[in-house]
Amino acid sequence: MDAPAKGLLYLDDLAVGDVFVTGEYLLTEAELIEFARRYDPQVFHVDPDRARDSFFGGLAASGWHVASITMRLLVDGGMPIAGGLIGVETSLRWPRPTRPGDVLRVESTIAAIARSRSRPDRGIVTVKSRTLNQAGEAVQTVETKILVFARGAKLSSSGGSPS
Amino acid sequence: MDAPAKGLLYLDDLAVGDVFVTGEYLLTEAELIEFARRYDPQVFHVDPDRARDSFFGGLAASGWHVASITMRLLVDGGMPIAGGLIGVETSLRWPRPTRPGDVLRVESTIAAIARSRSRPDRGIVTVKSRTLNQAGEAVQTVETKILVFARGAKLSSSGGSPS
Repeated sequence: MDAPAKGLLYLDDLAVGDVFVTGEYLLTEAELIEFARRYDPQVFHVDPDRARDSFFGGLAASGWHVASITMRLLVDGGMPIAGGLIGVETSLRWPRPTRPGDVLRVESTIAAIARSRSRPDRGIVTVKSRTLNQAGEAVQTVETKILVFARGAKLSSSGGSPS
Repeated sequence: MDAPAKGLLYLDDLAVGDVFVTGEYLLTEAELIEFARRYDPQVFHVDPDRARDSFFGGLAASGWHVASITMRLLVDGGMPIAGGLIGVETSLRWPRPTRPGDVLRVESTIAAIARSRSRPDRGIVTVKSRTLNQAGEAVQTVETKILVFARGAKLSSSGGSPS
């Protein structure tokens, strides 16, 4: 675990302005409803008929589903950080609904890099990501602070606060 | 849809400082792994053995899973807002890992209420929620701006920005 893994990125490899683009994810109506039944069972997420009369004017994905799909796209190679994608803090907005049949992808930009003063083998990297639909419209914007290890850091070092 | 629903809360019913407490949710290891395999397949979320050597020192739930469970608890009566829980913007932190077998509950406080100037039938309410484990430790803190309708508003009015 301590040897640099091929193709994986360490703190030293990242620069402000770096851009990462993921693959695509087709969100079916069946998956949209399945997720919402389990975690966000509100009519505009689970009932196509009643959703038409709701604020969303039709079935819309739970924002937490969109966030989860965004994570899956990033984990599937969209952002290959050594040690994994460990979020410390995140803020999200959902500028427009995600609909059944939407094809999502994520574009991310490194916005800031702050090496820890007390633990120089790691740092906090601020990533701004936009989750886009097939029309190129942002359905979610997120700014996340993630923990990134420096090359040579012991990735398994646990305990205490990430920073 | 336009008549006030019994037991549901409108903008006029909320006051800064109001507290809401949800029921409880037992997170099993099976569910923790199932969610992560689908949406956040990193070793510390899906592989109990390899998780021990990871940053988390053992299996930990995906933060997006914790967020989704938090939503479920709120939807299941934890915060009965008329028209549903419609998040506009949210920021989250995960101060400590959520582990298999944890029993989660959510405590929420109304932190701010801002009636829309342009559309006085609605407002943005800031809610601060803490997701607690069985030891009373916060595993997630979240501050969310939600859209809340005033009594008598047409809840199905759609289109455009929530604010």
